Amino acid sequence: MASEINDFSKLCVHTLTTKPWGIEDCVKNYSKAGIHGITIWRNVLENKNLAEVKSLLDDYGMTIVSLCRGGFFPSVDVAKRVLAIEDNLQAFEQAAAVGAPLIVLVCGADGGQSLEKSREQIAEGIVRLLPAARSAGIKLAIEPLHPMYAGDRSAINTMKQANDMAEMINSPWVGVAVDVYHLWWDDTLSAEIKRCASKDHLFAFHVCDWNVPTTDFLNDRGLMGDGCINIPEIRGWIEDAGFKGFNEVEIFSGKYWATDQTAYLEKIKKAYITKT
Amino acid sequence: MASEINDFSKLCVHTLTTKPWGIEDCVKNYSKAGIHGITIWRNVLENKNLAEVKSLLDDYGMTIVSLCRGGFFPSVDVAKRVLAIEDNLQAFEQAAAVGAPLIVLVCGADGGQSLEKSREQIAEGIVRLLPAARSAGIKLAIEPLHPMYAGDRSAINTMKQANDMAEMINSPWVGVAVDVYHLWWDDTLSAEIKRCASKDHLFAFHVCDWNVPTTDFLNDRGLMGDGCINIPEIRGWIEDAGFKGFNEVEIFSGKYWATDQTAYLEKIKKAYITKT
Repeated sequence: MASEINDFSKLCVHTLTTKPWGIEDCVKNYSKAGIHGITIWRNVLENKNLAEVKSLLDDYGMTIVSLCRGGFFPSVDVAKRVLAIEDNLQAFEQAAAVGAPLIVLVCGADGGQSLEKSREQIAEGIVRLLPAARSAGIKLAIEPLHPMYAGDRSAINTMKQANDMAEMINSPWVGVAVDVYHLWWDDTLSAEIKRCASKDHLFAFHVCDWNVPTTDFLNDRGLMGDGCINIPEIRGWIEDAGFKGFNEVEIFSGKYWATDQTAYLEKIKKAYITKT
Repeated sequence: MASEINDFSKLCVHTLTTKPWGIEDCVKNYSKAGIHGITIWRNVLENKNLAEVKSLLDDYGMTIVSLCRGGFFPSVDVAKRVLAIEDNLQAFEQAAAVGAPLIVLVCGADGGQSLEKSREQIAEGIVRLLPAARSAGIKLAIEPLHPMYAGDRSAINTMKQANDMAEMINSPWVGVAVDVYHLWWDDTLSAEIKRCASKDHLFAFHVCDWNVPTTDFLNDRGLMGDGCINIPEIRGWIEDAGFKGFNEVEIFSGKYWATDQTAYLEKIKKAYITKT
């Protein structure tokens, strides 16, 4: 059973959750709201002086949980696969500059080839990054994505597939990010979370909700409590498996992005205490 | 490996594939196009004299493959569960009247309760229908739906779950419908198809394609060849397992519905020969 949440000490918000805000707004407003965990999406780092971002994070007492996102390894086009590696290496530089200990991987898929082939290319891509991970001291989390993204965003669609890959690669630098949005429907999830933690591969935990009905493939995620996911049950599995990290709120929502973000942050805090 | 398709003797079209057409148009145009398999969606039977529909089907030499759809068993509201049973019993009457040997079940889900609870209610619902199935001589096919429908349309989202339920119910009247759209992403599909057939539970095979990107949760299915599903591979698994039935084209597509349906039927035939 999930522990009771009484404070915001383990709350982390993804910058993309409050998409209208740049990195300065995110840091200042999260901190003001008593939220000190942040996962930074790379879009907010574009054209920024990363040393200044790092100072800002330090000044406001923020803990950077992870950088989102690397990955997108597979392609039928070898040139694109090479570019993907370069992009991931750049993500390591960004992560190092802002002090992120973890990069989340949206692994990618190419509908022009089989899922098996894409998974081979994902494994090859991750293995190519291991020296950079070791030398930077930055971990990589394979994030299985919902099967509705198997055509174009991720050929890794279940916790089992993510565990299989992490175990095959077998490096202390490679683990798994669990996101309830992608995995809630899977009746093997509890067992696979246990398996993941038993191998020390449970690196991150993301929450939001599945709206009923869902109307957009990307930007109709719900705030915790809006939808049908039993988030406390899954958080219980995560905690029972020994996970001690942050609960990361990652919500892509055209609906919420259109509202006042400061008020939205208060809604997130309330939903975090009562519905997570 | 899938057999070569040289003719239309095993082609079946779902009436909803050509949604702009009523039942008369479907029967006459399919027959004229050399297509003699039809799966009838219940919407085209509304306010129709079913004996006349049966005569029409006979006159045009149509083979009715199945009636779509029964199911939608689960609800947090017991009154709705009772209504669902009544609706399914009405489907048996319609199936008997038009001569359908099979009813496809979209099993349902209620986001207000757990998927486990919804699956219990699905099993209860199907068991309630067994006497009607036996006395009418009409089979029921559990159709696992894509996990993106787990919130509201089906708590059965993998072939394994459908197999588990069919085996638990353990009746010659209850089997499984395989639809590539819902199941293509699952790396256990080949094994579960084999398992299904070994229990004589492989009742139906539906084809269409997964568009990349997909833009609508319901009505953006692709014509075979439009998307990323390796349909011949899956058809090969089905045939290797011993399936001898129709290949049913079930495409919900706002895009194709907006085009001339006679020309579309020719596209379907071409895609059936070359991309299925």
